[in-house]
Amino acid sequence: MINIVSAGIILIGDELLSGRTQDTNLGTIARWLLPLGVEIGEARMISDDAAIITETVRVFSQRFDYVFTTGGIGPTHDDITADCIAAAFGIGISERQDALDILRERYSEHELNAARRRMARIPDGASLIKNPVSQAPGFQTQNVFTLAGVPSIMKSMLLDIEHRIKGGVQLLSRSVTAAGIGEGDAAAHLAQIETEHDGVSLGSYPFFNADLRGVTFVARGRDAAALDVVEAKLHDLVRQLS
Amino acid sequence: MINIVSAGIILIGDELLSGRTQDTNLGTIARWLLPLGVEIGEARMISDDAAIITETVRVFSQRFDYVFTTGGIGPTHDDITADCIAAAFGIGISERQDALDILRERYSEHELNAARRRMARIPDGASLIKNPVSQAPGFQTQNVFTLAGVPSIMKSMLLDIEHRIKGGVQLLSRSVTAAGIGEGDAAAHLAQIETEHDGVSLGSYPFFNADLRGVTFVARGRDAAALDVVEAKLHDLVRQLS
Repeated sequence: MINIVSAGIILIGDELLSGRTQDTNLGTIARWLLPLGVEIGEARMISDDAAIITETVRVFSQRFDYVFTTGGIGPTHDDITADCIAAAFGIGISERQDALDILRERYSEHELNAARRRMARIPDGASLIKNPVSQAPGFQTQNVFTLAGVPSIMKSMLLDIEHRIKGGVQLLSRSVTAAGIGEGDAAAHLAQIETEHDGVSLGSYPFFNADLRGVTFVARGRDAAALDVVEAKLHDLVRQLS
Repeated sequence: MINIVSAGIILIGDELLSGRTQDTNLGTIARWLLPLGVEIGEARMISDDAAIITETVRVFSQRFDYVFTTGGIGPTHDDITADCIAAAFGIGISERQDALDILRERYSEHELNAARRRMARIPDGASLIKNPVSQAPGFQTQNVFTLAGVPSIMKSMLLDIEHRIKGGVQLLSRSVTAAGIGEGDAAAHLAQIETEHDGVSLGSYPFFNADLRGVTFVARGRDAAALDVVEAKLHDLVRQLS
């Protein structure tokens, strides 16, 4: 019998329910989990309501092997996800030094006001999740991964989660990061490379902030030798496009 | 006190959870409900699992004024929504003559095989919902509207529902977009403005790409005059922070 590893997805934000914003995070997470051998059992889109967020996290963390939440971890008054996660697990929450240090990499002391410092509030015992796009970290609390709602940030955080997932079947990956290259310039080449290597899937994860723009290419597959070849092709591609 | 009319949305189908299909039905329903004064409280994407569909319909039909389901009313073995609706309400289900007559408008007797006839199985006492695109009807069971999953068909069915909805006071919104402003700089001001205006909720939605960084502030409420005041305050805030 195959052991099915399951996930529940909680998409948080009034804007998803009002029709203002079309969610794409579910699809991104689903396509990322697929090769990891993790199956999504259910997804819920819920409003910025503390009681509902807390209860949904509680129910999902018991029902699924892994839970992913998106949204509600920014600096504004309606960003209440961290507190709800703590409440769901009955644990404390406070500003944490390691998270604050990360925010200081991006913000000056003047910019790091009370609102932005809220982004360093982390449930007790949670481990941080790197955010290569805008620094403010996500965090893992037991089997619940709390991610940003902005799709490009959410997607970048998945890079720091993949090794934490015990999926159904082991998958290998190689990544090549290149500054100054646009994802769109590489797209056709990536598709071509993927066509040439059955069983290898290629992803690209753009990053940009005020100073830097670039992309990380990730190849996934189960054949290490094939991945070595693909990785070499990705390095060639970066040289060609630079 | 304002009476809020609420809706729950149940999006049914494994393909929505696997990442194969990007749902757009939620947004379509949300934008259609907005001018009717019906607010979506929660949306769930669930798999083609009878127990989960039945339980979700049961819970939502009690929690919300209206419930909309999409998907699972076609002719194949995994189209089980109608049976689940009947189970949720503890009522019978059988092939119904009026539904069969509608199918005969589209299908010849030869085409109308056992599989297609399943689309004429309707929960006892439900009223049909017209499907101008592909005929096979949806149906309303108490406060639950059961619609097709294919977006163009789903949308066409809404035409035969609008007159059945008793909506509330319409939720209005105002948005102010500002480039070059960080969400964290505005956070405390937003919280203050929201405190000053009962019945108005404020959200902020950051955006950034290689060239541009900024934020859109959205104010929602049912009092147009109050929203006008809040919008003016948001413009002041943008001037102050620019």
